Amino acid sequence: MSNLNNTEILGLVAAFLTTVSFLPQVYQTWKTKDVSGLSLPMFSIYFSGIVIWLVYGFLLNSPALIFSNTVTALSSFLLLFFKLKYGKRKYK
Amino acid sequence: MSNLNNTEILGLVAAFLTTVSFLPQVYQTWKTKDVSGLSLPMFSIYFSGIVIWLVYGFLLNSPALIFSNTVTALSSFLLLFFKLKYGKRKYK
Repeated sequence: MSNLNNTEILGLVAAFLTTVSFLPQVYQTWKTKDVSGLSLPMFSIYFSGIVIWLVYGFLLNSPALIFSNTVTALSSFLLLFFKLKYGKRKYK
Repeated sequence: MSNLNNTEILGLVAAFLTTVSFLPQVYQTWKTKDVSGLSLPMFSIYFSGIVIWLVYGFLLNSPALIFSNTVTALSSFLLLFFKLKYGKRKYK
């Protein structure tokens, strides 16, 4: 019943890398609260795009797209949240 | 000859959003040279992953994946370059 061919395995490797790449950023931002270098438009637009990628992944029935975009949606939402939360502190 | 169906159009919208999202980040980093909040492991791993996504896009023959990952490879390479270039200045 498995539909994992070589192409899909490559997709999963790509998905794994782009997905885990957000974790050191989330960790660093959470630890240092340094969000001055992060662009608010980037993370707002990125999060919106990832949600649409997730829908696209479901329509294509691509495990790599579904897996990666679920985790990336969570990570980029966290970074957006940190940016809004810690970005404000500067002006207090 | 067009193979653009509704699913592929949705993919292109997602690709457009996640791709253009990097532009304000590239512009902000280029303008402010503020890279302290950017994680070097994130952009290193992200760039590697995007290159593999690009290969996956070619194998699936997905216009959305090929288009988006070409531009994102360039953007994330630039951010990685800025991080290495401007990150050093702090220690001078």
